[in-house]
Amino acid sequence: MDIKTYIKENQPRFFEELFSLIRIPSVSSHSHRKAEIQQCAELWKKLLLQAGVDTAEILPTKGNPVVFATKIIDPKLPTVMVYGHYDVMPAEPLELWDSPPFEPEIRDGKVFARGADDDKGQSFLHAKAFEYLIRTNQLKCNVKFILEGEEEIGSPSLEDFCRKNKKMLKCDTILVSDTSMLAADKPSITTGLRGLGYWEIEVTAANRDLHSGIFGGAVANPIMELSKILGQLIDKDGKITIPKFYKDVENVSKKERDLFAQIPLDEEEYKKDLGIKHVFGEKGYSTIERTGIRPTLDICGIWGGYTGEGSKTVLPSKAYAKLSTRLVPNQKFNKIAPLVEKHLKKIAPKHIDIKITRLHGAESYVCPIDSKAYQAAEKAYEKAFGKKPLPVRRGGSIGVIPVFEKVLGIKPILMGFGLESNAIHSPNESFRIDLYEKGIETIVEFYHQYSK
Amino acid sequence: MDIKTYIKENQPRFFEELFSLIRIPSVSSHSHRKAEIQQCAELWKKLLLQAGVDTAEILPTKGNPVVFATKIIDPKLPTVMVYGHYDVMPAEPLELWDSPPFEPEIRDGKVFARGADDDKGQSFLHAKAFEYLIRTNQLKCNVKFILEGEEEIGSPSLEDFCRKNKKMLKCDTILVSDTSMLAADKPSITTGLRGLGYWEIEVTAANRDLHSGIFGGAVANPIMELSKILGQLIDKDGKITIPKFYKDVENVSKKERDLFAQIPLDEEEYKKDLGIKHVFGEKGYSTIERTGIRPTLDICGIWGGYTGEGSKTVLPSKAYAKLSTRLVPNQKFNKIAPLVEKHLKKIAPKHIDIKITRLHGAESYVCPIDSKAYQAAEKAYEKAFGKKPLPVRRGGSIGVIPVFEKVLGIKPILMGFGLESNAIHSPNESFRIDLYEKGIETIVEFYHQYSK
Repeated sequence: MDIKTYIKENQPRFFEELFSLIRIPSVSSHSHRKAEIQQCAELWKKLLLQAGVDTAEILPTKGNPVVFATKIIDPKLPTVMVYGHYDVMPAEPLELWDSPPFEPEIRDGKVFARGADDDKGQSFLHAKAFEYLIRTNQLKCNVKFILEGEEEIGSPSLEDFCRKNKKMLKCDTILVSDTSMLAADKPSITTGLRGLGYWEIEVTAANRDLHSGIFGGAVANPIMELSKILGQLIDKDGKITIPKFYKDVENVSKKERDLFAQIPLDEEEYKKDLGIKHVFGEKGYSTIERTGIRPTLDICGIWGGYTGEGSKTVLPSKAYAKLSTRLVPNQKFNKIAPLVEKHLKKIAPKHIDIKITRLHGAESYVCPIDSKAYQAAEKAYEKAFGKKPLPVRRGGSIGVIPVFEKVLGIKPILMGFGLESNAIHSPNESFRIDLYEKGIETIVEFYHQYSK
Repeated sequence: MDIKTYIKENQPRFFEELFSLIRIPSVSSHSHRKAEIQQCAELWKKLLLQAGVDTAEILPTKGNPVVFATKIIDPKLPTVMVYGHYDVMPAEPLELWDSPPFEPEIRDGKVFARGADDDKGQSFLHAKAFEYLIRTNQLKCNVKFILEGEEEIGSPSLEDFCRKNKKMLKCDTILVSDTSMLAADKPSITTGLRGLGYWEIEVTAANRDLHSGIFGGAVANPIMELSKILGQLIDKDGKITIPKFYKDVENVSKKERDLFAQIPLDEEEYKKDLGIKHVFGEKGYSTIERTGIRPTLDICGIWGGYTGEGSKTVLPSKAYAKLSTRLVPNQKFNKIAPLVEKHLKKIAPKHIDIKITRLHGAESYVCPIDSKAYQAAEKAYEKAFGKKPLPVRRGGSIGVIPVFEKVLGIKPILMGFGLESNAIHSPNESFRIDLYEKGIETIVEFYHQYSK
């Protein structure tokens, strides 16, 4: 039976299985979701055993557990390890969802749910491609699965886990489906990821909320001071103003920039889709470059004072923000973090207190395109999509990818099947059903190509 | 029976009555509290009738109803009208209260609750002073009570109500207890109030929340842009940067500023109480001047993006802020509002959309100190507190005070008994029981002095 027929015949069961994963709100950044995290790991173990692995275990880490499964055909054959994550981003703001985030719904040929793409959906493709190869006796290499529960909070426990289990995790290549393609008809393989720094900032003025009429103008306003601090971090040309921030940024050659310019991006279409009149970013770089090869700084959240309906005159005691930076190759998080923190403290005025908490740090990643695994992936996409995939550097960060490189010595291949329009991390996350199917076909073909 | 004995003998009942008012969460800025607003108005009507008025009614306005009550002894005698409000500020953030905001609790000689001071507590003093005068046959003038339910949202319906009911509201003086004194042993009468402008600002970048790794650096961040806009509104010297904002500000003479300098303010104590190392405000003015005679600009609230636990990388679609200005005499809200709005639009960059909603506007107020009513008030404080009260201009705003002046031609006397430490508009609002008692004594004495 060919893979297309297999998918068609088993589609209702596939959805049932995927939906059972999605229905568990395994939100790693919410500490009250520990039970759901465990429940989701257990379901994955069960589904992998049903798909045909020999062994599947839930292994403890310092944080959320790892699901690890193996199918060893012959120790002499090469081993492919599939990495994915079973945790998801918070679904808030809930009121912006058209259907409940943890009750998957099929509309317009798409599955809508938190995790439909990132990464329950994309991890699931691997389980189903593997199942097909097992049931049709076509698997010609060993396979390991590692699914973690802390990717969305920066994989804080996985480096330690990898170091302690190097032998168990030994493999020849690592496949990861946690990225997106340029477009449904423009397949691409992600060959670069940005690193990440994430902080929470707390600004305190007075020790309690005050009446803004009685104290306003005499006591500093923490929201105003936080706004001034944040507003200074990027200048009018979109440049980050933190001293030495750009120091280690890779100097991309004219030739490489010319190649970037060939990546198709219809800027009018892009703006229309986002509902914006103008793009905005670092002067002197194209939109593709700004999101791929240049570091960025974003404020992911801000809050303080009265945020309810109508007016309340208050001079708040505190204001907060969540600040993130995306780092490019050569920029080391451990070097950038103190620069950011020192600068924030330096520009904070003396009439307020500032507290900076480091929440998350990840290194950047670059993948070579001449490896056996990359070339197998390239051929697999070409077969499934009818087009050779473009190598593309993307702006996102997957904390564990550089860890695999550092600890296991393997450069993972990022075979993503998402789309930017899938709205991962946002309300109404979705995944196109036709791309689920093409994803499974591509992965099956990868195994054929890689085992040749 | 003297007033001290009367208070002592009736104290348990007084608390019971006041607490029954406080237990009703009559929050005017929450539209779902309409039932509680009505319930509170009805309770006031009942309490005023019990206190001895001849008539009491609940009268409709365009918004929340007004409670109006009268005691006419002889139409030829002068009439005192007491103004108060039965609505309260929202109690949020609830987690900062040591006891539930709408369940009054007595601790350390104080009543703790939302409205304990502002303005259920202070309005209640008038009802009890009146009750004493009635029950002891000492009232020698006519009395009217007007209690409104929209003070905390800027009294949007009261001007219209006053215009339509000028005859009913006819009186010789208006007493208002909705302000504070310099200190428990430093009585003062508020002779000036600042005006108020209040806006909500909404900044929109993309039409949906985006992945900050994929779009960050290419699409404007609305929190960053809002921060930049807000941060520009006040310069490093604490001056408001909106063009022409200070144009109509009253130029206070050297002599008057010398008088201000005599108002006692222990700045070290002030800073210690607020937990701050430095005061901050407009350069060239003292703390008392900054909060009394100078206009100010505050951000009362801000929100946008991810504000939950831990980290979520998101490039939000929208960010919001609540902006307020306090205006001084001669600054007219209707002239200032377009300046503020025009400037915000002007400094907003083209790559975002800005929406500005006017929520609230009130004029400033100045009260002369040579009127019969002011002098009666002065003597009353002197008798109750043993010290002549200082005339003080305060930073707060009471929207209806300039309306009474404009429509009824009466300059209200602001006989406040609160303290700045009462934390009105903040968590753990309180009122000292000894000042409740002194407040009632002062008001009783006012009637004696005014009727001489």
